[in-house]
Amino acid sequence: MSEFRRNPVFGNWIIIDTERNFSQEKHSVENGVEKSDTAYCPFCPGNESMTKPEILAFSNNPHRYPNTGDWKLRVVPNNKPILQVESAIKRQAYGIYDKMEGAGAHEIIIESPQHDLQFKNAPLEYYENAYKAAISRVRDLRNDIRFEHIFYMKKYGSHGNYPIGSHPHSQIIALPIVPKQVNEELDGALRYFNYKERCVFCDIILQEIDDGIRIIAENESFIALCPYASRYPFEVRIMPKTHKSDFDLISDAEMSALANITKTVQTKYSLVLDDCPGTILVHTAPLKKRNLSYYHWYLEIIPEIAVLGNIDKGTGLFVNPIFPEDAAKHLKG
Amino acid sequence: MSEFRRNPVFGNWIIIDTERNFSQEKHSVENGVEKSDTAYCPFCPGNESMTKPEILAFSNNPHRYPNTGDWKLRVVPNNKPILQVESAIKRQAYGIYDKMEGAGAHEIIIESPQHDLQFKNAPLEYYENAYKAAISRVRDLRNDIRFEHIFYMKKYGSHGNYPIGSHPHSQIIALPIVPKQVNEELDGALRYFNYKERCVFCDIILQEIDDGIRIIAENESFIALCPYASRYPFEVRIMPKTHKSDFDLISDAEMSALANITKTVQTKYSLVLDDCPGTILVHTAPLKKRNLSYYHWYLEIIPEIAVLGNIDKGTGLFVNPIFPEDAAKHLKG
Repeated sequence: MSEFRRNPVFGNWIIIDTERNFSQEKHSVENGVEKSDTAYCPFCPGNESMTKPEILAFSNNPHRYPNTGDWKLRVVPNNKPILQVESAIKRQAYGIYDKMEGAGAHEIIIESPQHDLQFKNAPLEYYENAYKAAISRVRDLRNDIRFEHIFYMKKYGSHGNYPIGSHPHSQIIALPIVPKQVNEELDGALRYFNYKERCVFCDIILQEIDDGIRIIAENESFIALCPYASRYPFEVRIMPKTHKSDFDLISDAEMSALANITKTVQTKYSLVLDDCPGTILVHTAPLKKRNLSYYHWYLEIIPEIAVLGNIDKGTGLFVNPIFPEDAAKHLKG
Repeated sequence: MSEFRRNPVFGNWIIIDTERNFSQEKHSVENGVEKSDTAYCPFCPGNESMTKPEILAFSNNPHRYPNTGDWKLRVVPNNKPILQVESAIKRQAYGIYDKMEGAGAHEIIIESPQHDLQFKNAPLEYYENAYKAAISRVRDLRNDIRFEHIFYMKKYGSHGNYPIGSHPHSQIIALPIVPKQVNEELDGALRYFNYKERCVFCDIILQEIDDGIRIIAENESFIALCPYASRYPFEVRIMPKTHKSDFDLISDAEMSALANITKTVQTKYSLVLDDCPGTILVHTAPLKKRNLSYYHWYLEIIPEIAVLGNIDKGTGLFVNPIFPEDAAKHLKG
């Protein structure tokens, strides 16, 4: 059972989740799967019984039974979820502190039956299915009024000795709180809106199109750029050109355009950064705020480029060794 | 030349510092020293000419010339500083964005002439000298009115293939801005003070002493504990029992007590986490706010325990695999 604890000064919630394996000797902690479990992959076809019963599946076979093979994509609950959907949300005091049971949902989108499919080489249909499944899950989870925010995130590439990490998948995490960082982004956008009466993200898009030097790709619905104040080298943001605050309000046409530009960015990454792994994260409005005029959803991609001697941990101060204009120049090719 | 750029939504400043070496092939960036420079260490005795002229040195030899050998500790400007003290601070607009030249100071405290001295095995005098030098530098840098905040941080243990990383040293970074995270901590503490008319950190210390289960060490002036809402496994906080908002207002007696408890914590770490590297960071009030009744300086230690499949990057959501009570139990021994 996991527990939420609130930092009494910063006000952010931390999740303590002891279901994760924790190895002191190796200074490492695994997310849901034993390090020794290299003999099998629970995400591979034929191993459907190793996951919890599927929530959603895409298949070309209209007669397919759930939890059998012959699928293109499956969504399953995480075997060792950070949060359990069954828990009630009970906030309570602990002296001067605050805590809460770890209610929420933690689902895995198994994006392909092919274990060794590389994200950068995946066909367009793969990207389309992945986004289609994610949006479908967000739209469904939104109906549970206990949830306040949903993260959709994907880690691609090889992340250390993490056996299932290499089977292409993404995660959906529904939370009973709005994370502090999400509220901060909303507050910042609202401050700008109150002052300018314009969406700051729409303004950013206009300036970026005007400047041109940080844009790496563009199509009818999206623009991909290296943000002006990039925290990480080769950080990329994919922004919808039409103002919308909620990821799950995306249209089918936009979904295809998003799949397309994601693939384009990954191709560019592979040319410049080789097989550098990374994280994709959707920034979207909290569930109970919708159609906001001051917020604008977007997708963030952070390659895992090691910055030795970096000082951001604890300080929150990011030092980026490359100007985003130069990163964009490399990626544009 | 480095440049500060402000995130137009979050409002935090990012530093772009192209003086750092950046290797796309290896996905790694070095902080000030070439990866190939393994033949020598600029921090070792005899190599004094490899650093910029020293700012401060401790020696048993009263006749020692600056920048020669025979020292116990040296403070030198970083050869490739993130910030240059000579720069003027010019804030300016760039379209809707904000930028500023990277003025500041970046100093290295070479804490010992012994290259392979392990932090955990260092004698008490080593810790005392390190803190004495840090406080002396903070007190001096405080006089430069361009500076708004000073970070004192130390990375200990082996951090990858980082040649000078193994020579014991710490860093002083003086900034022309107050980092957003520092302001957030102050704001949170002020909210509590406005509501309770008490310092939240003093309340934390009282509750921790009362609970007992998260305390791992204590002496006349300090308490070392695993924070209630720890973000990282085995995170430790060393808090002064007497209310003071500013690290550099520490007394000589407190400085010895701090050296003592730091050594104790490192000994405990070495028994439980072996040679796990980590970061020590001082949280203190910004330079132009002093003697605050609502803020309380403290020292934070974060061991570098890999949490595979973690989700904090981008989300700001920390998942900790161990309850701080259990971490404290292990460390207490």
